[in-house]
Amino acid sequence: MAQPTGFKQEPHRLLTIPGPIEVADDVLYANAHYSVSHVGADFIPIFGDCIRMTRDVVFTQSGQPFIIAGSGTLGWDEVASNLVEPGENALVLHSGYFGDSFADCLETYGAKVTQIKAPVGEAVKMDQLKAALQEKKYKIVTVTHVDTSTGVLSDVKAVAQTVKEVSPDTLVIVDGVCSVASEEIKFDDWGLDVVLTASQKGLGTPPGLSILVFEQRKAPATSYYASWKRWLPIMKAYEAGTAAYFATPPVNLINAFYTSLKTITRSSMTVDERIKLHREASKRVKDAVSKLGLKQVATDPAFAANGMTAVYFPEGVTAPQVIPELLQQSIIVAGGLHKDIKDKYFRIGHMGVTAVDPSRGDIDKVIKGLNTTFAGLSANKQ
Amino acid sequence: MAQPTGFKQEPHRLLTIPGPIEVADDVLYANAHYSVSHVGADFIPIFGDCIRMTRDVVFTQSGQPFIIAGSGTLGWDEVASNLVEPGENALVLHSGYFGDSFADCLETYGAKVTQIKAPVGEAVKMDQLKAALQEKKYKIVTVTHVDTSTGVLSDVKAVAQTVKEVSPDTLVIVDGVCSVASEEIKFDDWGLDVVLTASQKGLGTPPGLSILVFEQRKAPATSYYASWKRWLPIMKAYEAGTAAYFATPPVNLINAFYTSLKTITRSSMTVDERIKLHREASKRVKDAVSKLGLKQVATDPAFAANGMTAVYFPEGVTAPQVIPELLQQSIIVAGGLHKDIKDKYFRIGHMGVTAVDPSRGDIDKVIKGLNTTFAGLSANKQ
Repeated sequence: MAQPTGFKQEPHRLLTIPGPIEVADDVLYANAHYSVSHVGADFIPIFGDCIRMTRDVVFTQSGQPFIIAGSGTLGWDEVASNLVEPGENALVLHSGYFGDSFADCLETYGAKVTQIKAPVGEAVKMDQLKAALQEKKYKIVTVTHVDTSTGVLSDVKAVAQTVKEVSPDTLVIVDGVCSVASEEIKFDDWGLDVVLTASQKGLGTPPGLSILVFEQRKAPATSYYASWKRWLPIMKAYEAGTAAYFATPPVNLINAFYTSLKTITRSSMTVDERIKLHREASKRVKDAVSKLGLKQVATDPAFAANGMTAVYFPEGVTAPQVIPELLQQSIIVAGGLHKDIKDKYFRIGHMGVTAVDPSRGDIDKVIKGLNTTFAGLSANKQ
Repeated sequence: MAQPTGFKQEPHRLLTIPGPIEVADDVLYANAHYSVSHVGADFIPIFGDCIRMTRDVVFTQSGQPFIIAGSGTLGWDEVASNLVEPGENALVLHSGYFGDSFADCLETYGAKVTQIKAPVGEAVKMDQLKAALQEKKYKIVTVTHVDTSTGVLSDVKAVAQTVKEVSPDTLVIVDGVCSVASEEIKFDDWGLDVVLTASQKGLGTPPGLSILVFEQRKAPATSYYASWKRWLPIMKAYEAGTAAYFATPPVNLINAFYTSLKTITRSSMTVDERIKLHREASKRVKDAVSKLGLKQVATDPAFAANGMTAVYFPEGVTAPQVIPELLQQSIIVAGGLHKDIKDKYFRIGHMGVTAVDPSRGDIDKVIKGLNTTFAGLSANKQ
């Protein structure tokens, strides 16, 4: 499909929420590509390459990517309807909003769900996971890699290791939320079974694609649209360079995704370097937050995500004093999402171009914005 | 959100398949909009307007639109998981590929499906429908408005009338496929319960949105992502001018859809005039096909869709003699899809800008292409 030529998005406020994130000009231009047939020769290699490059992002050789029109939420239906039969047990490691929702989805399809809930700002501890696995047989364990409601990062490698030790038949399901391409994920080395995410976070593409990688074992199916049995021949066909039809893929979004994946996996910057730059950008934001005397929701740096930061307001300060002030400075951040602390904190996203392209100055702008806003607040107080 | 400013898509081959269709420049530009928050003040009124304008397209006051990231296929899951309980009866009126697939989806969720299959090129007759409804109680009847595998148009008004007469509790589900905004649909006047479609056909937007309108009665839910119970508060919130979160809506695609809907429902051309122009464009293509001595798959003009034309190859002629020749002339048509006649015919789409904007010359180009191609074939024969 045609290459980008000098397209520039209009000037706008900096979007630093935990997704959608700022999207590069070439990716947006790819989303405005003229119409092509979903089974045409122009489109087939694009979709095939997206499947291959998705493997590269999570470091797998054999995992099967599924790239389907939908929100990230659709990935939960895929897991619930393809991997768990009604009545089977599922263990959900809860580090915020997304644990509750995934549990809800699993129960809709008939799974018996147990949750281990970490205190707000923490991830589930390995000894708790071990004890739960020893007590009961689970078909799957789900872990939220970065819970964007809290900014808490779970140690997925340790979770997978613990599961393999105690209950090797149990499948390890990683709900990336915003982690894919912003946090380290070694699908094959860590022995993961599923990683799922959406296009609009670390992957730097507009929302509308559910992206999931599955290490194939077996798959029943109690859904139709979310059924891997129906999508697998489609993914295999496009990867092999032919077309097949189950439902029309979102050709423009896939073209946009392709453009972003090329930057992520085939540019001079490796995926590992990209993760490192996310860590550095995150450290700059978190250091600035600490310097302002603000407390993060993640209680320990070991639990803190690298693609976002969740920050408590100081005592006596509320969202309407902070978020509109940042907006005045052309910076959009997100309010609270976790129901226990909803009004007590805000969230800053720093993924994709915002984290890895210093020439944009996004991180500088965010830090300056935070400094001005909170300095203003203490000045008003005095 | 920002208004289009002179953006032009690159020159390209004319895409005349039954979807995706040619998309207007302003719609593509809207799809390349810079990132905005899905719960932000810029986006909320856009989504709200999409919901309102979708009502206008199908002429309903009270129907509830659901606009969800997904392929059109997701609409089947919505119907199967929200309206039919396992073991309940569903009657599928089959006029091609999409009848079999909808039946397949309904069975996945546990419905007991009966199909009335029309011969290839025809729609189901009302006396057959009447007899079936008298024999057994059905929870839903589904009808494919335009089956794009055959180009057959079903008389939805007559179907709804027959159902209301014989079995008034039975819900009438219209799978538009490519009909919405290219064929007449009077949701309220005809007493429909559901109309479902996708964004990339008559609605003139890139693929990736499942669009469904539902006259609310009651809704169980055996799916999570496809559950109306979960999406209803979201649709109501955006329409009321506030945000709510279940899954991130595809903001760029919705901005593109908004731009297309504005043209369809709020420009100087009314929806009814738009349908009339689709009929006129269709007649021009069908007349040209007839003049070439070619037979349509739809056996009767009363069954023939206005947004597409399905045409049999002449005796002894095959797809590789026709489709690449049209491609040479920069025209992309589609091959066969209906399994009984797959290699014997091809399909031409003529919807959206191609049908209603004569200044583009798309219909002229298609007719000229057909004339040249088939004239060449008879010359070679002689």
